[in-house]
Amino acid sequence: MEVREKGFKMLTPVPEALEMLLKLAEPIGYNQVTVREALGRVLAEDIISERDIPPFNRAAMDGYAVRGEDTFGATQTNQIYFKVIGEVLTGHPEDIEVGRFEAVKITTGSPVPNGADTVVMIEYINELGDEIEVMRVTPPGNNVSLRGEDVKKGQLIIKKSRRINSQEIAMFSALGTGHIKVVRKPEVAVISTGDELIESGKELEAGKIYDVNSFALEALSKEAGCNVDRIGILEDNYATLKETIKALDGYDIILISGATSVGKKDVIPIIVEELGRVYVHGVAMRPGEPLGFGRIGKSIVFMLPGFPVASIVGFETFVRPLIQKLLKTHIKVPYRNIKVRLKRKISSELGRRDFVRMKVTEQKDGYSAEPLRSSGSGIVSSLVRAQGFVIVPENTEGVEQDDVVEVFLFRDIED
Amino acid sequence: MEVREKGFKMLTPVPEALEMLLKLAEPIGYNQVTVREALGRVLAEDIISERDIPPFNRAAMDGYAVRGEDTFGATQTNQIYFKVIGEVLTGHPEDIEVGRFEAVKITTGSPVPNGADTVVMIEYINELGDEIEVMRVTPPGNNVSLRGEDVKKGQLIIKKSRRINSQEIAMFSALGTGHIKVVRKPEVAVISTGDELIESGKELEAGKIYDVNSFALEALSKEAGCNVDRIGILEDNYATLKETIKALDGYDIILISGATSVGKKDVIPIIVEELGRVYVHGVAMRPGEPLGFGRIGKSIVFMLPGFPVASIVGFETFVRPLIQKLLKTHIKVPYRNIKVRLKRKISSELGRRDFVRMKVTEQKDGYSAEPLRSSGSGIVSSLVRAQGFVIVPENTEGVEQDDVVEVFLFRDIED
Repeated sequence: MEVREKGFKMLTPVPEALEMLLKLAEPIGYNQVTVREALGRVLAEDIISERDIPPFNRAAMDGYAVRGEDTFGATQTNQIYFKVIGEVLTGHPEDIEVGRFEAVKITTGSPVPNGADTVVMIEYINELGDEIEVMRVTPPGNNVSLRGEDVKKGQLIIKKSRRINSQEIAMFSALGTGHIKVVRKPEVAVISTGDELIESGKELEAGKIYDVNSFALEALSKEAGCNVDRIGILEDNYATLKETIKALDGYDIILISGATSVGKKDVIPIIVEELGRVYVHGVAMRPGEPLGFGRIGKSIVFMLPGFPVASIVGFETFVRPLIQKLLKTHIKVPYRNIKVRLKRKISSELGRRDFVRMKVTEQKDGYSAEPLRSSGSGIVSSLVRAQGFVIVPENTEGVEQDDVVEVFLFRDIED
Repeated sequence: MEVREKGFKMLTPVPEALEMLLKLAEPIGYNQVTVREALGRVLAEDIISERDIPPFNRAAMDGYAVRGEDTFGATQTNQIYFKVIGEVLTGHPEDIEVGRFEAVKITTGSPVPNGADTVVMIEYINELGDEIEVMRVTPPGNNVSLRGEDVKKGQLIIKKSRRINSQEIAMFSALGTGHIKVVRKPEVAVISTGDELIESGKELEAGKIYDVNSFALEALSKEAGCNVDRIGILEDNYATLKETIKALDGYDIILISGATSVGKKDVIPIIVEELGRVYVHGVAMRPGEPLGFGRIGKSIVFMLPGFPVASIVGFETFVRPLIQKLLKTHIKVPYRNIKVRLKRKISSELGRRDFVRMKVTEQKDGYSAEPLRSSGSGIVSSLVRAQGFVIVPENTEGVEQDDVVEVFLFRDIED
C-alpha cells in the first residue's frame, strides 16, 4: 500500500459529486403490504379506484328522504304533509320506492331510496305517527352525497411515488384496498472504524472516546425510511475491514465512517478501490472534505469522515438524496425550513459549500439566528445546541449580518 | 334513553374546549430505554455530562505533537529540526513527555502527549529517520481539541422534554450514555362504530361503505408517538358498545368515531356519561361540530364525528395537542407550515373556527393555494388532493383573495 499522507490532490464540487452519485442509483423493487403496514412507506403503484365512492346516494343528515320538489312552498306556518312509507337504517338498506308526497325515515350514512332525491333534516319535521309535517323547502340534492361524488370508478386517486401519511391511509381505507405495492426499503449497513472507539454504555478506557457515528448514521437512515443493520465498531485493521466489507454484498448502501481520509491508517478508500471502484474521494465542502463514495458490486459505499458533525453533514448532502432517489420520492421541500435574519455574518470560501450550524431564536416578527461559535466538526454538542443549518453555496464568500437566509431545521422549534 | 334529535343546544368554542381538555391531562410516567430505542421518543430527564468531551487533549490532524513555541520562525526555507521520541496511534495512548524541540508522531483522534500543546500537520513536515524538519509556524493550541472543549463534566447538555432525533442520538452516544429515561408512550384505543361499516380488504355489501376512521386515527396516533390498539369496527349497539368501552380502562386515550352526534342512534355520549363524565359535546368548528370528549376513570374519551375529514380535523385540533401535553413536548412550530397567496377567497362564519383543505401550487415567487371545491366532510379524496389546511379563526368572516395565509401541511410538497 502506498503511504498517502499529503492531503487531497483534487476536491470535487458538491453538485458534480452528487450528479455522479445519483447516476449510480438503480431501481430497488417493491413489496406488497397491507394498508396498515404502508404508513411511512412510498407508494410503488398508481392507485385507481375500483368503485364509486360513496357507492350509493348517501344521506348526509338524519331526517326523511322525499322528492325535493314536493317540499316547495313549505314553511313553519305552511307545513306540507307526507306519508311515511318506511325506514332505512344505516347499514340496513331497504328496497323502497318513494312516490310523490311519500317519505322514508333515514339516518346519516344510509342509502337514499329510489325516487327520493333529498333528505329533509329532522329539525324541520314534526312526526305525527304515519305522517310527517315538513316545515322547510329542501330542494333536490340537499343533504345527499351522490354516488361517485367523492371518487369515481376508474379514477386515478394517488400517483405512485407519494409518501404514505395518515391521509393516504384514510384514502386507501375508503377505497377498500387490501394490499398495496410500496417501494422496498433500502437496506443499509453501518460501520464505524477506529481503534479509539468504545461503544456507548461501556466503560471508557484511557485514550479512547465513545463512538458516535454508528448510532447517529443508524438513526438518520431509519428516519429516512431504510432498514438498517448496525454492524458496529471495527478496528483500523486492513484485513478485518476488507473481509467485513466484502461480506456486505447484499446491502444497497454501506456507510463507513473513519479511516476514510488520506492518512497512513486511512485504509477504507484502498479497500473500496480493491473490491470495486471509488468514484469520488475528497469533496469541496466544509465540514466533510474527506468524504468519498464508490461501488462494490451492487452496493453503493460511502466513506464518511470520522468526525461526527462532518459525517452527519455528509449524510444530509449525499446519502439522504440517494435514499430519496432509491425510494423514488419527488420531494420538493425536503426539510422543514424557515427564513431567519442573520445576527452575525458568516464567512465562507469561494468554490466550497459550507454547512453552518445555527442557533435559532424566536422574535416578535419572525426568527433570527446566529452561527454557533464553537463548531469544529468534532464538536458533537453543536448538533443539539443548533436547531439546524444554513448552506453557504459555492459561488459566494459568505452572508452578511441582517441578511435573510433559510435555515434547514433538524427539529421542531421548542421552548 | 331520551330521544335527542334536535341538534346541539350549545356549541363550545374551540379555545374553551381545548383549555378544558388539557386540564384533564395527567402525567403518564416514563420508561428506561437504550439510546438506540430512544429515537423518536421524548426525553424525560435532564442530560448532564458525567465527563469531559473530548476526555483528553485530542489531535485534530495527522502530524507531530510538539511545543508550539518551538516552531516560531519555521518556514519552507528555514526549517526547524525536532527529535522524534515516539509515536501515538489512535486508541493506543502512550505515556510520553515531550520536551523542547522534541516531537511525537500522532494520528487524528489520539491524545496529545504531555508537554506538547500543538500538532504540526504532516503536510508541513519532512521526515528524516529519527528527526523531522518543520516548515511552518504552528502556535500552541493549533490542531488540538482541548479536553472538555465540546462538553464539560457536570454540564447540562439537553433539557428534558426534547424530542429525540438523530442529533440527540449522536450526543447521547458521545456521552457514553447506556440507558435514558423517556416519556412513556400514551396508550390509545381506536374504535369505529356504525352498522354500515365494512373493513378495508373485505367484500363490500349493499348499503355499506368501507371504514376509514379506525385506520386513519390509528395511523395519526402512531405518527404522533403513541402505542395504538385498533379495537376495530363495532355495530351501533348500546349494550355491546358500553361493554367494550368499559373494558378499555387501561388506556390513556380512547378514540371513538361515529354515533357521537345527537341522533337517535348516537349512543356514545350517553354511554360516556353513564360510565364517566362528558365535558364537552358540540364544538363551534367546521368540520367537526359533533365532536365531544369526556373522561371514564383515567381514560380521556374522544367522541369523534363519523365523517372521516371531520374526524381527522378533530384529531388535529384536540387529540394531537393532548398527546403533546402528555408527552410533555414544548413544540412551538408543530407542523411544517408555509405562507401562501390565496387564489380564491374563503368565507367563514363569525364565532366558528373553520378548517379549509387547500391545494398548494408552487409559483416562481413562492406558493399559492386555493380551497378545494369539493370538500364536504364526507369527501375522503379531499385529504389526498389537498396538501394541508388553513385555519380561519373565530374572530373573522373569512379571508380575501390575494391575502397571504399560512397553510399547515400534511406532507412534503412533491412534484
